Amino acid sequence: MNFQLMPVTAAGTRLVELAEQHARDFATRAEQHDREGTFPFENVDALRKSGVLAACVPAELGGLGVDSIHDYVLAINRLGRGDGSTAIAANMHIFRPWWMTRYWRGARQAGDAHVVERLETLLRQIGAGEVIMCALISEAGTDLLHPLVEATRTEGGWLLNGRKIFGTLSPAANLMEVACRIRGREYSPRRAMARVASGAPGMQIMNNWDALGMRGSGSHDVLFTDCFVAEADVLDTGPWGDWSEVFVAANLVITLGLVAAFLGIAETARDQIVEMVTTRRRAPGGRALAERHAIQQTIAEIEIDLAGARAVLARTAVAADHFFAAHDPGRIPMDELHQLMKDFQCTKLTVTRNAIAIVDRALTASGGAGYLAGSPLSRLYRDVRAGPFMQPLSPNEAFEYIGKVTLGLDPVLES
Amino acid sequence: MNFQLMPVTAAGTRLVELAEQHARDFATRAEQHDREGTFPFENVDALRKSGVLAACVPAELGGLGVDSIHDYVLAINRLGRGDGSTAIAANMHIFRPWWMTRYWRGARQAGDAHVVERLETLLRQIGAGEVIMCALISEAGTDLLHPLVEATRTEGGWLLNGRKIFGTLSPAANLMEVACRIRGREYSPRRAMARVASGAPGMQIMNNWDALGMRGSGSHDVLFTDCFVAEADVLDTGPWGDWSEVFVAANLVITLGLVAAFLGIAETARDQIVEMVTTRRRAPGGRALAERHAIQQTIAEIEIDLAGARAVLARTAVAADHFFAAHDPGRIPMDELHQLMKDFQCTKLTVTRNAIAIVDRALTASGGAGYLAGSPLSRLYRDVRAGPFMQPLSPNEAFEYIGKVTLGLDPVLES
Amino acid sequence: MNFQLMPVTAAGTRLVELAEQHARDFATRAEQHDREGTFPFENVDALRKSGVLAACVPAELGGLGVDSIHDYVLAINRLGRGDGSTAIAANMHIFRPWWMTRYWRGARQAGDAHVVERLETLLRQIGAGEVIMCALISEAGTDLLHPLVEATRTEGGWLLNGRKIFGTLSPAANLMEVACRIRGREYSPRRAMARVASGAPGMQIMNNWDALGMRGSGSHDVLFTDCFVAEADVLDTGPWGDWSEVFVAANLVITLGLVAAFLGIAETARDQIVEMVTTRRRAPGGRALAERHAIQQTIAEIEIDLAGARAVLARTAVAADHFFAAHDPGRIPMDELHQLMKDFQCTKLTVTRNAIAIVDRALTASGGAGYLAGSPLSRLYRDVRAGPFMQPLSPNEAFEYIGKVTLGLDPVLES
Amino acid sequence: MNFQLMPVTAAGTRLVELAEQHARDFATRAEQHDREGTFPFENVDALRKSGVLAACVPAELGGLGVDSIHDYVLAINRLGRGDGSTAIAANMHIFRPWWMTRYWRGARQAGDAHVVERLETLLRQIGAGEVIMCALISEAGTDLLHPLVEATRTEGGWLLNGRKIFGTLSPAANLMEVACRIRGREYSPRRAMARVASGAPGMQIMNNWDALGMRGSGSHDVLFTDCFVAEADVLDTGPWGDWSEVFVAANLVITLGLVAAFLGIAETARDQIVEMVTTRRRAPGGRALAERHAIQQTIAEIEIDLAGARAVLARTAVAADHFFAAHDPGRIPMDELHQLMKDFQCTKLTVTRNAIAIVDRALTASGGAGYLAGSPLSRLYRDVRAGPFMQPLSPNEAFEYIGKVTLGLDPVLES
Repeated sequence: MNFQLMPVTAAGTRLVELAEQHARDFATRAEQHDREGTFPFENVDALRKSGVLAACVPAELGGLGVDSIHDYVLAINRLGRGDGSTAIAANMHIFRPWWMTRYWRGARQAGDAHVVERLETLLRQIGAGEVIMCALISEAGTDLLHPLVEATRTEGGWLLNGRKIFGTLSPAANLMEVACRIRGREYSPRRAMARVASGAPGMQIMNNWDALGMRGSGSHDVLFTDCFVAEADVLDTGPWGDWSEVFVAANLVITLGLVAAFLGIAETARDQIVEMVTTRRRAPGGRALAERHAIQQTIAEIEIDLAGARAVLARTAVAADHFFAAHDPGRIPMDELHQLMKDFQCTKLTVTRNAIAIVDRALTASGGAGYLAGSPLSRLYRDVRAGPFMQPLSPNEAFEYIGKVTLGLDPVLES
Repeated sequence: MNFQLMPVTAAGTRLVELAEQHARDFATRAEQHDREGTFPFENVDALRKSGVLAACVPAELGGLGVDSIHDYVLAINRLGRGDGSTAIAANMHIFRPWWMTRYWRGARQAGDAHVVERLETLLRQIGAGEVIMCALISEAGTDLLHPLVEATRTEGGWLLNGRKIFGTLSPAANLMEVACRIRGREYSPRRAMARVASGAPGMQIMNNWDALGMRGSGSHDVLFTDCFVAEADVLDTGPWGDWSEVFVAANLVITLGLVAAFLGIAETARDQIVEMVTTRRRAPGGRALAERHAIQQTIAEIEIDLAGARAVLARTAVAADHFFAAHDPGRIPMDELHQLMKDFQCTKLTVTRNAIAIVDRALTASGGAGYLAGSPLSRLYRDVRAGPFMQPLSPNEAFEYIGKVTLGLDPVLES
Repeated sequence: MNFQLMPVTAAGTRLVELAEQHARDFATRAEQHDREGTFPFENVDALRKSGVLAACVPAELGGLGVDSIHDYVLAINRLGRGDGSTAIAANMHIFRPWWMTRYWRGARQAGDAHVVERLETLLRQIGAGEVIMCALISEAGTDLLHPLVEATRTEGGWLLNGRKIFGTLSPAANLMEVACRIRGREYSPRRAMARVASGAPGMQIMNNWDALGMRGSGSHDVLFTDCFVAEADVLDTGPWGDWSEVFVAANLVITLGLVAAFLGIAETARDQIVEMVTTRRRAPGGRALAERHAIQQTIAEIEIDLAGARAVLARTAVAADHFFAAHDPGRIPMDELHQLMKDFQCTKLTVTRNAIAIVDRALTASGGAGYLAGSPLSRLYRDVRAGPFMQPLSPNEAFEYIGKVTLGLDPVLES
Repeated sequence: MNFQLMPVTAAGTRLVELAEQHARDFATRAEQHDREGTFPFENVDALRKSGVLAACVPAELGGLGVDSIHDYVLAINRLGRGDGSTAIAANMHIFRPWWMTRYWRGARQAGDAHVVERLETLLRQIGAGEVIMCALISEAGTDLLHPLVEATRTEGGWLLNGRKIFGTLSPAANLMEVACRIRGREYSPRRAMARVASGAPGMQIMNNWDALGMRGSGSHDVLFTDCFVAEADVLDTGPWGDWSEVFVAANLVITLGLVAAFLGIAETARDQIVEMVTTRRRAPGGRALAERHAIQQTIAEIEIDLAGARAVLARTAVAADHFFAAHDPGRIPMDELHQLMKDFQCTKLTVTRNAIAIVDRALTASGGAGYLAGSPLSRLYRDVRAGPFMQPLSPNEAFEYIGKVTLGLDPVLES
């Protein structure tokens, strides 16, 4: 047995192998991108060329045909072992065809030719490596349910105004989906998703991402100033502030991938420290550090946390696969979806907590050596701390959400 | 999705249903047995009658034919929800036919008629509810690898002397397996297993089990004073002090069941506290306690720990099923077995830690009400604390073991 | 240096010596009272005879003249080492003369002869060992700020109705102070303290204390059914539901003593386990358990938690001494008092958390031996868990309180 | 009451005021030095000019005359609030005159004119701001008891060879004390301290400090290549590998100051997050973040950890003052010194753990804002992680040391 997570489908196996190859390559440049805060364009390009970016596009539309969330998530996990920044950036795109494919299949079954065509076109473009998408969702001063970026009516479409933050992958994407607010009938606010080509007039990537870690993720602010969006490119996604199927389900899947990247970071920290303590020796005894009981104790704590993180992630990913297979898009009962989201939030907190603890313990076991900037551990320590901030619920919100859903209460969060 | 663990085989599904029925019944008497420190003979008898005690006996030999460790473990989990003491007591027997069946199948394949017959006889007796077995393994002042109870040569067999502790299920068992030490050629000490009928001359159950919790498990000391054991009933199991396949594999499977019982205890504590806070109201506001953020926070922490415990237990149980399916008995490479045992030790520590934390948090959320002896939580709090002491490795030893195996060192433990 | 807490005044030194003598005596009976759930009348009588119950009565009124909260608290700590139940029971009385003496001094300074006389009479009775007091404060279904036991007007006084819980020391007390609700002018509810002689008609001690631990504390329910209380014996203590100086200050001091008892429990657990691991040896190595690294690690964690608990308790007790010396009774600014209470709540949580962790680790290091009912550790494990429930704020409330006071918000708690 | 630590002597009060002024100034440049990895020469110069560097020089020799370790430690704490790097750098020097003054007083009492003169000269130079000292103690691949840098005999003195790491303050110091190994009679190795002027031939500061945090501390490697040291400048300090009074006592005092700096970092993180949550508001509710229960909970946990860290640090510092006052230099019983060191190691682990937890929680409460490089929290998060690595015992060694001393065993550590 090996507690390492392994793919469960053939397409997934091929994807994970590709991801492992990429990871080895990305690892060689991770430190430099971290130091310089540069975006790893070459990594994204390699992922495009190998087909990984099109992993979840159906084979008949040019992709790798990975259906399983579990397996797509493992690919992100493997990328995270090599370079956490690239992994979370790639995830922002890779997830999207999975989602579209689900709707494309639904539309085919329902015989909705218009939707089928629209989705098929985009999927083929992604399959061909022509389109890279990213999602602009977060904003300062509000939560994800209440976007403040505003789309207001203009002739033939909308004008978009406001500022997005954490625009991960934005430097490499050529098509952005922007969560925004529109006004419906009777002026009640609604949430919407606006699709904007990168570089469109009135849209500006601020190139200002500069953070404690994940410095190569290109998570810049993106500013919209009277940016025109065509009528067809703004999709109403429900009442402003309300949970909805699209909101919960999409965020769940996308964040599963993100969480997997943090597990990958922890796995690398674990490998680094095992390598370090089994090879380094110290005076006066001259034995390998691994011979010391304190080191064995720390390594054991790492293994325990790793086993827990892997198990809970795999279990949730498999559960998500079953869940989505059992429900057609647009027809998921919200209470069941909240149960799944609740379990996933437990998973997210466990994996990111454990991952942080693992890297922290690796640092401890390094005895100070890992604190030097030249040690990969010091980068991993900064990168891994981003985990709990992954959306849609901050740690400040997640406990309340889990508690309320468990207790059968309406998960309206404090604001 | 529901994070609750569910059986994966048909026979297992039937077994788990039976276990759930028993658990509801056992729960009605758990408090009384706890208070009075009495052994739940009627529970064991019910398990015998329903066939649960013969769960892992092949159907053709009169049992339920449960093959899957995962599913057998879930049955113990369900029993643990109703009464932890009964669950761990029952586990000491239920596990054994699984183990024998594995060797019975191996012997059939190898054409070893003698072994086939010997095992078949015993399995049929268990299938018929005539034999209940228990294992006497622990002793004060030594670890499991180094039993000090001694079997010395006498005419036609052996004389057994010494004292065993933690003889869980001993009041109801009629056949005991006793770990002991014998002297081999050149007087080197060896580990052996002696089979003794309960009530044999020179064997005395001390009826002295009196502990913080698990008070109904009948874990008495058993004293042997020149107790005669026939030649054929003493099985040499390898050098005294050495890890061996039988030792590691049997302890792994048996302890998986035990660990599952502690998860069951935690699940009941979780249900109890959810019930309590959703129904109780307090002045002056008069709202249900569940409306309070501090309660929601605590419930969320419980859910998180529960998700983690369930996931890691299920993952290990499935892994164990795969592992044993892939290896014939007597032919498991020790290094692979240590890897599995290492992962299982991570699981044991995670599940028992989380289970303890869950009951503790339930007590906290009860605001003092759970501290009263009349609250099930106060019993669960005592019962669940036994978890980490489950053999073969105490918490004092488990970290060293995990660390050493992970670091590629020989897992010889400090002594 | 020794991190053990030591008294800072001469009277306190004498008191602590007495308490240490008592503790050694009480320890010999603690297990029996725990098993049988009996109240240790003989312990309380011994404390009365030695003068410990009158510790905080001024010397000129017949007491030991201990002024320092720090030193009184250390005496309770020492009692807690011998028997936690007796320690928390004794604290309920010992604290009271300290409080009365403070008001007695204030009244003398203010020339309020009536108050002086009233308090002096009672203090002399306590000094002579004639009066033992206990406070009946807690109720099921409400918090301490909102008592529901009701005193209603009758001729010449009041009729008291309702049920109190956690009446620690009630079996031995002859004078009870009962927190209750009265109706003021315009029918607005107010909080009051009613003084009732034990055994008064309509007052019934239910002798029903039966809990996980602290089984000798006599914390019975007390039922009031039209129990008459004279006019002069009901003291209005402010609006129902409001924080007030008396409420906060008295609860702070009384709980400091309680918290110290839990530190004492932890100290005994630490001594027990150090004794155990330095004397016990195990096969096959035969070395003392103390030689094992895992044991050393666990002992180190115990020492760390002990150092932290002691330091924070001493610091708060000294701070309380300074604070009360700097403020006359009845004239403490509420915001400063909330700051002190906030710091004390931090202390209470730290000490009780650490104490629980210490006993838990001692149990771990015992390797199972401590789980047996015959081991003092199993009693300490149950006793110490009561710590966080000590009033006036449950763990469910304490975090909110600390957070709000720290953030400059009005500490109105969720209800 | 305020749990903030306050000085207890008049000289200490003056020093702490100065330190607070400096801290406000240093805080304005901390981010820049962190970004650029530059050493804050101007900070050290300001400390020199204000007299803080001469804090512990007796007033009659030109210093501030601070005797109390407690108060000197508080000054470092205050500096740590402004800039952790400067605080730990300054501590490496400030500590030294305290130590020398202790020996100077001892020598005066003993009438040892030679030692008095030698120390007096140096103390006057420090008092006049002419000498800044730093200690070069750590090396890669060994612990502090076993320095590998070697001083070998040459004509008129010694030649020093080897490499030191973590040479904090080295860029600003003009006099280095270098822990090294010499060969005694019969060639048995001994530990020694060599005094070397900065810039001496054969001594090279490598200007290579580049770490996760504490980036302004100038903790460069220092390389010695046949660096000549005069006979009188090498002091034999006992057998190589042995604990000794000088080793334990000096390391204890110096590390107390370091630990205090980490408390200061945590205090600043706490102030930063309180400021953030009380001023920031979020859509849609628009209330301050401080109104949210999850935030209050997190702030409460911060307060609890802060109270514990402050209490245990103050208690140890006061204890150290008492201890050194009670023992003349050179005459401290080693077992008592180990007890003090054990308690201090508990303190170090508690303070640094709590400090790390505080900054981590502040980051959590920031909801992601603190993860940006522009937030002071992201720097504090990196700086505070250095705490556990402060010498003389790494976390890998400290538990073993505490455990062994507590259990009455010889604290010989694994190697």
